[in-house]
Amino acid sequence: MGMTIAEKIIARAAGVSEVRPGDIHTVEVDRLMSNDGTTHLTIDMYHNKLKHPHIADVNKLVWIVDHNVPSDSPKTAASQKKMRDFAKEHGIKFYEGQGVCHQIMMENHVCPGELIFGADSHTCAYGALGAFGTGVGCTDYLYAMVTGKSWVLVPETLRFNLTGKLPEGVYARDLILTIIGKIGANGANYKAMEFAGDGMKNLTMSDRIAICNLCVEAGAKTALMEVDDIALHYLHEHGREPKACFASDADAHFAAVYDIDLSTITPIVAKPHFVDNVCPAKEAAGVKIDEAFLGSCNNGRIEDLRVGAELLKDRKVHPLVRFLVVPASQAVYQQALKEGLLKIFMEAGAIVMNPNCSVCWGSCQGVIGEGETLISTGTRNFKGRAGHRDSFVYLASAATVTASAIKGEIATADML
Amino acid sequence: MGMTIAEKIIARAAGVSEVRPGDIHTVEVDRLMSNDGTTHLTIDMYHNKLKHPHIADVNKLVWIVDHNVPSDSPKTAASQKKMRDFAKEHGIKFYEGQGVCHQIMMENHVCPGELIFGADSHTCAYGALGAFGTGVGCTDYLYAMVTGKSWVLVPETLRFNLTGKLPEGVYARDLILTIIGKIGANGANYKAMEFAGDGMKNLTMSDRIAICNLCVEAGAKTALMEVDDIALHYLHEHGREPKACFASDADAHFAAVYDIDLSTITPIVAKPHFVDNVCPAKEAAGVKIDEAFLGSCNNGRIEDLRVGAELLKDRKVHPLVRFLVVPASQAVYQQALKEGLLKIFMEAGAIVMNPNCSVCWGSCQGVIGEGETLISTGTRNFKGRAGHRDSFVYLASAATVTASAIKGEIATADML
Repeated sequence: MGMTIAEKIIARAAGVSEVRPGDIHTVEVDRLMSNDGTTHLTIDMYHNKLKHPHIADVNKLVWIVDHNVPSDSPKTAASQKKMRDFAKEHGIKFYEGQGVCHQIMMENHVCPGELIFGADSHTCAYGALGAFGTGVGCTDYLYAMVTGKSWVLVPETLRFNLTGKLPEGVYARDLILTIIGKIGANGANYKAMEFAGDGMKNLTMSDRIAICNLCVEAGAKTALMEVDDIALHYLHEHGREPKACFASDADAHFAAVYDIDLSTITPIVAKPHFVDNVCPAKEAAGVKIDEAFLGSCNNGRIEDLRVGAELLKDRKVHPLVRFLVVPASQAVYQQALKEGLLKIFMEAGAIVMNPNCSVCWGSCQGVIGEGETLISTGTRNFKGRAGHRDSFVYLASAATVTASAIKGEIATADML
Repeated sequence: MGMTIAEKIIARAAGVSEVRPGDIHTVEVDRLMSNDGTTHLTIDMYHNKLKHPHIADVNKLVWIVDHNVPSDSPKTAASQKKMRDFAKEHGIKFYEGQGVCHQIMMENHVCPGELIFGADSHTCAYGALGAFGTGVGCTDYLYAMVTGKSWVLVPETLRFNLTGKLPEGVYARDLILTIIGKIGANGANYKAMEFAGDGMKNLTMSDRIAICNLCVEAGAKTALMEVDDIALHYLHEHGREPKACFASDADAHFAAVYDIDLSTITPIVAKPHFVDNVCPAKEAAGVKIDEAFLGSCNNGRIEDLRVGAELLKDRKVHPLVRFLVVPASQAVYQQALKEGLLKIFMEAGAIVMNPNCSVCWGSCQGVIGEGETLISTGTRNFKGRAGHRDSFVYLASAATVTASAIKGEIATADML
């Protein structure tokens, strides 16, 4: 019997010819990303718990300060300083204030065929480039950092066969929210979500990253896509070559197969307080909002900013709405600058922020108060994610978020 | 005996022909600025303490959210919502995320001859346009908001006669730090600081705002300058006309007169933890820094960004330094965008933030940790102002701050 992409990557990392769901394998981890969410904890354990602290291969490590940028308290400043100083001492590749970790990884590091651990849940985004990315805690991170190795329980794979094309005004965010709504927030628990089919050719790299990124919200261990010309073009554009390009075998085993016609997808929102609490965006229309957020590793790329800017041109942000626009990386920021998008946002009354996790992390930028409502392209909408425990977060596409920022209430772009 | 500018403005606001230092007068306040530092407290008192709450003249009020932008906690979000909702309900001129209050006031509201209360200490900046600006607490603010009136104890005036021209590479910040170092942090307690003399013609509006703005750090009640062609040009450029242009009479009484030759000023830093703890910047050279800040109502104007960008062109921010660049207003931001300055900052590795108080307010953006050192164009360097109580803040010009960000230690521009 053949193997899926996830199985092939694990087999490669385990140095064996075949793996099956349910097997546990010791694997060589190709790359280890960590951000300011937990790296200081890893460092503390490194210093205090290990008899012989060392790093197996410093070249595997990428450390990124992106969650609280710039630091919002003496405590985060101290955590970040610990991280900065350690990175410098050990020669670890280090980014600070350059953007959200996953966007930086996609632009600069992720290679097809790699097994990547990231100390952040949305590491599954890397599947858009055919890499097995998965989130780990700081203890697992430490082990992999010290030994270069870890273990993986081979997950089953859910296959999503995509056909057709998203209608005009419908986006990857709508697709993945539809899927999560369908299978539920636990629908892919510890499974790989694999996307394939003719419809893939109609999805840009930005679409693909958005789709893979959000799979962890359905509980997925990882998300994967075959490396096609679109992925290779992105990779080459960013000066990299694939490690190995895998496709699932024709006779690979899938735990379930879903067929999805992209042309049937419509604008969707996930309502408070669960990502799978979805409905057509039009059904939520009219809900008053206090804040809107366009950004995050999910929807802060140039393609998303273009969608927002196009809608905002010759329009204004509603006077009672704070609209935060946060490019996902410095590269995105620079491109948006060049295209005049930031000017459009600012002239319309949006607050353009430095590239970082911002509102999606909900701890220091654009935090919302009691009873307030946010519509967001961020990754999560659980209770308190964006601030007060009695506040409300809706998730939606860049188009729906921007249209809502203009109207002061939830709206789709065609309602403007 | 003649009167000083401060006395003439108070006389006008009191509706009398003459006032003398030590007199107490009831005055009509021309304008009332308040920001998110304390406005929520004013609103609480308005609702809870007054039997007949009302606003004397809503057109006098300008409310500005600039201290925690975007909001960094549910608590600040709630404070700001209170402010936003009240402003909307009562038709109060309201700005949010558009920049630091004093910069917005200078660009849009301050008129020569006005008596302006601001619920913020650096309201004395308005003297650059010949207005008597002074900081008040939220209780005094409430009284003026409800009655349109308040009282002023007529201050004595210190006169600073400026001659000559600042040398190349020396800035208004160096001048005012020199003056504060000379007279001390209490040297102008409850006095007006008036700047005059031939040297004024060599100081731009941006220089003048920086000088007046910092006078409160010497304890001044207000700062004042005569309205000359440079001030009138600025005013006209921003579409406004003066209310009244006052100059001190030849026989006005000054508590002290200082003669300062601008050509003798050199780059200065104020060392931790007092603004009058000044020394030549070169004497502090070599002190390692962790963060640098170019921004604030004192030095976040286009002129300051030009100075910084010029130094950063073809250079990089030191890898161990976070360099935060924060335009003082959206207008400044847009201009910097247009001139390509933001691109220079970002390509050099600086973090460009949205217009707001940022590091100078020290509560949510670019906060520094224990033992860390900041060099800043902000307004204050007392213990804990930028974060941890055991951290260190040096104040300096845009040039010295940028040069230090490049070197990773305190340096003047000519040391690059």
